[in-house]
Formats: sequence, structure tokens, C-alpha cells
Amino acid sequence: MSEEGCIFCDIVAGKVPCYKVYEDERTLAFMDVNPVTPGHVLVVPKNHVENLLEMVPGDLAAVHQTTQKIAAAIMKGLNPGGIAILQLNGKGANQVVMHYHVHLIPRNRPKDKLKILEWEPKKGNVRSIKSKMEKIIGGM
Amino acid sequence: MSEEGCIFCDIVAGKVPCYKVYEDERTLAFMDVNPVTPGHVLVVPKNHVENLLEMVPGDLAAVHQTTQKIAAAIMKGLNPGGIAILQLNGKGANQVVMHYHVHLIPRNRPKDKLKILEWEPKKGNVRSIKSKMEKIIGGM
Repeated sequence: MSEEGCIFCDIVAGKVPCYKVYEDERTLAFMDVNPVTPGHVLVVPKNHVENLLEMVPGDLAAVHQTTQKIAAAIMKGLNPGGIAILQLNGKGANQVVMHYHVHLIPRNRPKDKLKILEWEPKKGNVRSIKSKMEKIIGGM
Repeated sequence: MSEEGCIFCDIVAGKVPCYKVYEDERTLAFMDVNPVTPGHVLVVPKNHVENLLEMVPGDLAAVHQTTQKIAAAIMKGLNPGGIAILQLNGKGANQVVMHYHVHLIPRNRPKDKLKILEWEPKKGNVRSIKSKMEKIIGGM
């Protein structure tokens, strides 16, 4: 369940220290030491899996229950304008640590002047959207 | 369970059409018509809640099970370099439709040249991190 050389497994095992926010049987929440915004927290399953596709149902539900609990605590404790929940899968999506993790990023836009997670909605091409949809449905 | 004037509730009720990818008892997945990248999908709970803090455990688990299923389908169907999972809470975090929803955004960085969801990790200030942690723990 633990992966040699994985920094998050080492944190879960207590071999590497962390700023722990919360822990239960299946999950651990700790401060990101490279915060995107102040109050940036990570939630991880204790069992090592690389990404969303490998998560077992019990851990997946537990991680999101913990995320919900921490989000409530961030609102109460820091009172930001909102919270972005972000979870990256694969190097092509910017995943850096290859142990599944959920980011909780407090936001105060537009005050925090953060471009990250912002985008201008632009009308999509219907043909392209349908074609992607069909490929996704075909993938199930 | 349905909110007057909510576009996602209208989609769930079939009053507004959508490019449906998947549906089960608790959740609906459909193409985002303003895709950030090709293959951008949304997953919503059928019951109207505004954000993560209001989600009941059964819907929360169901939404993430559906998200996992769709992510696998996107990998199989579109073969991107990765998938970013994004869920925004509150106007201060850029939430536009006030019905809880999860974005699945296929990514092909650096090829897709998308700044969104990218950031340069920078070392945080330990005192600031600890202070935020204490406020969050105090919020529980």
C-alpha cells in the first residue's frame, strides 16, 4: 500500500514531517508547502495510488468527505471568497507528485489577482463537442 | 430538490437539452458547451445544491464515482496526456453556475499551451503556512 520513494507515502508514514490539518483511518490532510494561495491544503488517501483511475470506491468517497470537511474548516477559519478544488491526473495535466491528491485552494478573486483557474468561457464548436462526446461514450 | 431558474436543474429535468455522456440515479454527465479544452465534461448531482459544503454524503460519493467512470472513458476515448478535475465553490473562486458541478478537462501539456491550471511552485513562508493551518484546524 506504500510506495518506495513516494514523498506522500513518507509523509503518511511519519518519515517526513508535515503541517497536519486532519487525519482519519483512510485519509490525511496537510498544508501544501508551496501554496498557490494562503491556506492551500492537500488531501491524500493513505493507500498509494497514482491517480483517479486507480482509486478504490471506499478511498475515493473518504477523500472527498475529508475534502468537504476541510473546505468547511477553511471557510470558517479563513473566510475566503471561495475555494477551488483541483485534482490533477497525469504529467500531461501537470501532476507532479504521483500519489493521488486533492488541492483545496482558497480564492479571493478578483482581489487575489490570480490567473490560475480563471478562463474566459468561449462558445465551443458543436461538431467538435459531439465528436468528443461520442469518443468518450465509446470509451465506456 | 430542483431550483427554479437553475440551468443545470433544467438540464437534469430535460427542459433544456444537453450532450449527455452518462446518467444514473443520482448523477448526470454532459459536455460543457464552452469547453476549456476539447472533451471537457461536467458531472452534476441531480439534486440541486449550490456547492461542496451542501453536498450530502451519498451524492458526493456518487458524483466522484461518476467522475472516475468518465475520466476512464476520456482516457480510452480521447487519449489525452492527462485530465484535470476542477470544482469551484463560490463566486470568489470563479463559480458561475450555482449548482455544484465537477469539470473534467483533458490536458496535453505542454502541447496545449494552456496556462490554466499551471503554476510555478514557489517555496511558502513557514510562519504564514502554520498560521493558516491553525485557523483551518480552529475552523473544525
